[in-house]
Amino acid sequence: MITLYDLAITDDVRPSPFCWRTKFALAHKGLAWKEEPVGFTDKDKIAFSDQKLVPVIVDHAHADKEVHDSWDIALYLDKTYPDRPLFKSEQEQAFARFTSHWTGLVVHAGIFPLIVDDLYARVRPQDRDYFRESRAKRFGTDDFEAVQATARETRLAAFRQSLEPLRQQLKAGPFLGGATPAYADYTAAGAFLWAHGASPFALLDTGDSVISWRDRVIDFYGFGQRAVAAT
Amino acid sequence: MITLYDLAITDDVRPSPFCWRTKFALAHKGLAWKEEPVGFTDKDKIAFSDQKLVPVIVDHAHADKEVHDSWDIALYLDKTYPDRPLFKSEQEQAFARFTSHWTGLVVHAGIFPLIVDDLYARVRPQDRDYFRESRAKRFGTDDFEAVQATARETRLAAFRQSLEPLRQQLKAGPFLGGATPAYADYTAAGAFLWAHGASPFALLDTGDSVISWRDRVIDFYGFGQRAVAAT
Repeated sequence: MITLYDLAITDDVRPSPFCWRTKFALAHKGLAWKEEPVGFTDKDKIAFSDQKLVPVIVDHAHADKEVHDSWDIALYLDKTYPDRPLFKSEQEQAFARFTSHWTGLVVHAGIFPLIVDDLYARVRPQDRDYFRESRAKRFGTDDFEAVQATARETRLAAFRQSLEPLRQQLKAGPFLGGATPAYADYTAAGAFLWAHGASPFALLDTGDSVISWRDRVIDFYGFGQRAVAAT
Repeated sequence: MITLYDLAITDDVRPSPFCWRTKFALAHKGLAWKEEPVGFTDKDKIAFSDQKLVPVIVDHAHADKEVHDSWDIALYLDKTYPDRPLFKSEQEQAFARFTSHWTGLVVHAGIFPLIVDDLYARVRPQDRDYFRESRAKRFGTDDFEAVQATARETRLAAFRQSLEPLRQQLKAGPFLGGATPAYADYTAAGAFLWAHGASPFALLDTGDSVISWRDRVIDFYGFGQRAVAAT
């Protein structure tokens, strides 16, 4: 059994895109896990990891080994549990890294201003000060309502356009990895699950192939109920 | 022996990024080829392929089999010559496709307005009308000097920023594919060879890790002399 320390905005809203990567990696490998919710100001729960970011896992089958950072967790899981590998070659690992970088730089960065005020509205009362101060540093203001409204007015078209590599890729198969989902799918789908779980805003046009792909990835491991429950 | 029909701006300037993909694929597989230059208005030379775009290859060892489109050529080469595979798995192929899409949408689209007038200045006299008319359709004007000057003034910083996924990837190894170059490297390097071969403009800051990577890819198969000769 593995314990996953998972970011909780409220107890049943667990939108962290990096934690989603780990949930997908665990599901891909057929490993069982239980989740421990961690609010923004509950970081004492993961103090044993000597850093402050989730996801963190503890592998009870291996002397309670602690691993943090979604990428290091993926590598640890493949090394420790060789069945159902996430990566079968150096190039497959390179594919996962490239799509992770692209997702962070393009998809996360594009989504964040579009939903920041909705995220803020959902944060637990005891975490609101932390969220406001830490996120204000990124935007240069704590007026998240204005940031979000401006982004929706001025940046939505460019954000949707920036997803074109996904749409082109999906013309060749149901998943970014081809016939079955790969870590590239988990990385990119995690970004949309983050938004989906924390904001009712329609990031994408109805009929966008990115929506049907996202839902295929969610459903592949039966995450559908959770993703819906979170909205 | 394979004949590669290669876009020639002048006889010794052969900058097509799609033809570079094929040259790298042939070099990767250790196959010998000879090149047949094709100017913009020499398309009768490839009329046998029933379409108008290079690269086209003719494989003389296999009944003069004709294959066009750089992606279809890569798949053909792997199928016909299984040694030194470009792709060892579906995910490796997916990696190549994703980086090809990204390169086209981000790198080619970013570079083109920045060098269009330099390209135009190098086109053979008999091809200038073709180039002007076909490219004017993309820009909505044939004043390429203005397009290029405006792009250099207003779009250069965003273009350089858009390459950040390359830089992040290169922190983990010398090539996008890891320790050795993969099709992802050929795709992306082809875009920079296109610019390098057709324009003296400094697309990148001195010291950018993308420059040293580009040069590593060029040198890996001894293309250094050609790339330099073309400038």
